[in-house]
Amino acid sequence: MTLLASPQAPTLASELTLATKGPADVLRGTGDLGVVVERATGSLALVNTSDREIINHIEGLGDLSHASVKFSRDERYAFVFGRDGGLTKVDLLTGRITQRIIQSGNSIGGAISQDGRYIAVANYEPGGVKIFSSDDLTLVADIPTTYEDKNGETQRSKTVGLVDVPGNDFVVSLFDAGEIWTLDMTGKKPGIERYRDIGEKPYDALISPNGRYYIAGLFGEDGLAKLDLWHPEKGVERILPDYGRGEKRLPVYKMPHLEGWAIAGDHAYFPAVGRHEVLMANTADWSLEKRIPVHGQPVFVMSRPDERQIWVNFAHPDNDVVQVIDTRSGEIVKTLEPGKSVLHMEFTPRGEQVWISARDSDHIKVYDTETFEELATLPAESPSGIFFTDRAHKIGL
Amino acid sequence: MTLLASPQAPTLASELTLATKGPADVLRGTGDLGVVVERATGSLALVNTSDREIINHIEGLGDLSHASVKFSRDERYAFVFGRDGGLTKVDLLTGRITQRIIQSGNSIGGAISQDGRYIAVANYEPGGVKIFSSDDLTLVADIPTTYEDKNGETQRSKTVGLVDVPGNDFVVSLFDAGEIWTLDMTGKKPGIERYRDIGEKPYDALISPNGRYYIAGLFGEDGLAKLDLWHPEKGVERILPDYGRGEKRLPVYKMPHLEGWAIAGDHAYFPAVGRHEVLMANTADWSLEKRIPVHGQPVFVMSRPDERQIWVNFAHPDNDVVQVIDTRSGEIVKTLEPGKSVLHMEFTPRGEQVWISARDSDHIKVYDTETFEELATLPAESPSGIFFTDRAHKIGL
Repeated sequence: MTLLASPQAPTLASELTLATKGPADVLRGTGDLGVVVERATGSLALVNTSDREIINHIEGLGDLSHASVKFSRDERYAFVFGRDGGLTKVDLLTGRITQRIIQSGNSIGGAISQDGRYIAVANYEPGGVKIFSSDDLTLVADIPTTYEDKNGETQRSKTVGLVDVPGNDFVVSLFDAGEIWTLDMTGKKPGIERYRDIGEKPYDALISPNGRYYIAGLFGEDGLAKLDLWHPEKGVERILPDYGRGEKRLPVYKMPHLEGWAIAGDHAYFPAVGRHEVLMANTADWSLEKRIPVHGQPVFVMSRPDERQIWVNFAHPDNDVVQVIDTRSGEIVKTLEPGKSVLHMEFTPRGEQVWISARDSDHIKVYDTETFEELATLPAESPSGIFFTDRAHKIGL
Repeated sequence: MTLLASPQAPTLASELTLATKGPADVLRGTGDLGVVVERATGSLALVNTSDREIINHIEGLGDLSHASVKFSRDERYAFVFGRDGGLTKVDLLTGRITQRIIQSGNSIGGAISQDGRYIAVANYEPGGVKIFSSDDLTLVADIPTTYEDKNGETQRSKTVGLVDVPGNDFVVSLFDAGEIWTLDMTGKKPGIERYRDIGEKPYDALISPNGRYYIAGLFGEDGLAKLDLWHPEKGVERILPDYGRGEKRLPVYKMPHLEGWAIAGDHAYFPAVGRHEVLMANTADWSLEKRIPVHGQPVFVMSRPDERQIWVNFAHPDNDVVQVIDTRSGEIVKTLEPGKSVLHMEFTPRGEQVWISARDSDHIKVYDTETFEELATLPAESPSGIFFTDRAHKIGL
């Protein structure tokens, strides 16, 4: 809270002047804001996509390697999930941390419920899901995600691939148990549904943009596990049986993130495991339709909001390049070099710009997605994930 | 601008207290705001969907019958298009009008460009499109939309169905000329492409959510005119040749609004002309697949953001009812009675609530879309259109 919002109005002009410095000095809409994770310094760069500028840096967020961010439904607050188990609520208007807790030893990501009231965190160490009030980060529910191992002993499973879906549910995968759980947050206690034997070692998951299909990647075997949330009675089905074939048992950090899938029109575009290919499947029957040769091993495969382009970045040592596929032809139409170690990309809501983080160049590049013209270069400390506030309005983001 | 944002900080506590009354008295995110058009009083009700409350009323907007609203890309400002040719820029944070102009004698709607810099208005009297700076509403371009009539004389056409599409273009239909124009706002002057002989008297149009298909309804003949903006070289094609058959030459005010179409998955749901039916077409070939019997003549046919439900309201005398179709079964699963003369519906961004305006009951009803529970009744003066700020982030809205 700032002085301006406090019940005691300041009585001296000097106090007011003090209070109005920093990001709160002007009234500001929050629809064109975003944050960039600066992992070297444990800070966020607060950015504005209208002026293409960094407004300020917000520090004190702990270990931000692989950090992810969700936004409150009013687009005012960012919830930052740190690898160190930290959960931090940041006020984009004042540029201050409003709450920060260490909720576990090692967390992998989180989600915000459809109604905006709950923040869920998937934990590695110890396993389980914790659910907090988005208001003040008080604990609402602690779900240990236990299962019986082969010896009949109760174990606690690591959790991955946590997303929100319509109906005020969360969906999560249990790495050790090989299960998918849905957590219904409509009532006072989470209503849990378990889907067992979904496949060996789900390591990540994605949700389709309409919240219907939850798809988990399997580290322990080939193929993917799909749950149709419009028809939960059908249970979990296996799709794309060849996905990962011949590449399994790679170190887990080499498996591509499934959040990097793009669903555009009737097709899903996704990174091949260990190959220089983007794969294109038909979403009607989830059959593999086409392999598109690309510059390196793809990491993120992202659709421009109008679904006409797919942007791809790559794993080391090919990570200085970004390629653009035209979805009309399925061919590469542009190769860009935004800097060293490109880690993430984010489109503005209507897709006219893309922001790209180049970690080892310590900058963010902004491009016009139609002309590929470079619009801005913004300095940042080892930038990684980029998150714009319009995610607040999107199912599963 | 408020005192707080002015370069001269107030020097007296009393001034500050005065300045901080009204909606600007707290810092506020703008992602959960919206406006409801109150046509009887020429005002907007500023609403908040997190607290489900009316924050205040903003007056002095002129004739708001059939008014529509667009939002700036930061979700701070609303641009209100009045039937009297008024174009008003409203600051949602201060609750004040920042600019207001009368730009024509009679206007039918407007659009905001993908980059947020331009506001376009489609005019009836006189015809044409005017383009303004979204910053201060100064005129940027005046496009008279002229054509040669059968006698070779130059006439000015009424314009309808104006939308924004990716590439920073606007698309508009010319009622009298029977043409579709695209207006490219990338350069200093609008780049105009004309599509002639698209059909007789286009009276309204819609754009698909990804900005690809522009579809105009025809008042002078049956069927619809479709322009695939990913393949403009193919020109305008005719689809759904039976649409409107036997119902043509009805008074234009009885033709359903095409903005009321819902595109969900592989299907488009839309109001039949003059019949108690919602029609379902396959978007692969635009063939008519199913007719769903409903309570009355549908007006708006809207998809919940997750595409699992279609909500429908109706023309007089059946306009006290709203029906919900489940897209899995294609059947009606709920009939609600929100009040007298239901005019419009708007979903919250992730679809957990729907807000419904009942003009002659002078209230807005808010429902939980999953349980159909009534969450709130909010008083408003003859409420009509409801517009939430997340439209700022959507192509064509």
